[in-house]
Amino acid sequence: MGRWQPGARDRLALAALELFVERGYEATTVADIAARAGLTERTFYRQFVDKREVLFGDPQSYNGIFTAAIANAPANARPLDAVAAALTTAGDSFAGKHAYARQRGAVIASNTALQEREQVKRLHLTDAIADALSKRGVPGPTAQLTAELGTVAFHQAFARWIEAEDESDLAKLAVRVLDELREAAA
Amino acid sequence: MGRWQPGARDRLALAALELFVERGYEATTVADIAARAGLTERTFYRQFVDKREVLFGDPQSYNGIFTAAIANAPANARPLDAVAAALTTAGDSFAGKHAYARQRGAVIASNTALQEREQVKRLHLTDAIADALSKRGVPGPTAQLTAELGTVAFHQAFARWIEAEDESDLAKLAVRVLDELREAAA
Repeated sequence: MGRWQPGARDRLALAALELFVERGYEATTVADIAARAGLTERTFYRQFVDKREVLFGDPQSYNGIFTAAIANAPANARPLDAVAAALTTAGDSFAGKHAYARQRGAVIASNTALQEREQVKRLHLTDAIADALSKRGVPGPTAQLTAELGTVAFHQAFARWIEAEDESDLAKLAVRVLDELREAAA
Repeated sequence: MGRWQPGARDRLALAALELFVERGYEATTVADIAARAGLTERTFYRQFVDKREVLFGDPQSYNGIFTAAIANAPANARPLDAVAAALTTAGDSFAGKHAYARQRGAVIASNTALQEREQVKRLHLTDAIADALSKRGVPGPTAQLTAELGTVAFHQAFARWIEAEDESDLAKLAVRVLDELREAAA
């Protein structure tokens, strides 16, 4: 049992979402998830701290999509343009994942603890973006506020993206919402 | 024991903060808090669902400060100006509460569950502001994004306000941060 299970993390995440949709989040146990994935509970706990975390990817790799794009933006790009580039890259990374994201969104909407966790994920993304902007020499307060704008835009775009039954281009949507946000602030 | 205790809520909140500062949040029990306030655990649970909630005021009354100000803004005020008026009113409502807010902030920073709860409070404030703007006839997406701008500005202003040892004018600071946010979005 101790050996590495290839793809265990993804198999557990998919099995968990299936069960949450079928039976509800609260009625599903870690034992159920492991059984559905054909793995042991021990393997589950090697991948995830608890049942809640199975719905939340690795924050390092999620935030890393945004922060790498910010680091790679042209040296003369303004802070908000670097953030727009990050939203595009992050939006593209969700291509083909609409059905999964939509089901996941419905499960999260059904449970307060999951909504809280989703908020915390957003907070950490804001911090990561602010940090990436600071590394480009953007002053602290501007980095923080620009990061907030980026996170708000991505979060709102994501909400609209999973609201629709058909998959649209999340990258384009995120940049459009960022423009709407700029208009609201004008 | 069953009778109404005048000021019980405030006494419990102050006793709780004292103990959290002295002993740490996790080491303090509801029994400790009730004893420090000279009240019973039963009275505590009549006021608060659990230990965590003692640090979070009544959301109806907190959000109501913002939403009432938005409702009372001049009919021709633009959405973001109505929000600026709300930040001013809300900022004024914290006058004299700097020492408490600063201690509370330190306790919240010490515990992940409290940080999550603080994020949820922010989420609910955003929803309440968006709702208040919708009632003024602001279209849904604009109401949502303008509300996000207001919440970001107030949250950031609050963080700066409690960072400083001396009390400054939170209302003025919130409006200034909103201006910085508009600049970051420009």
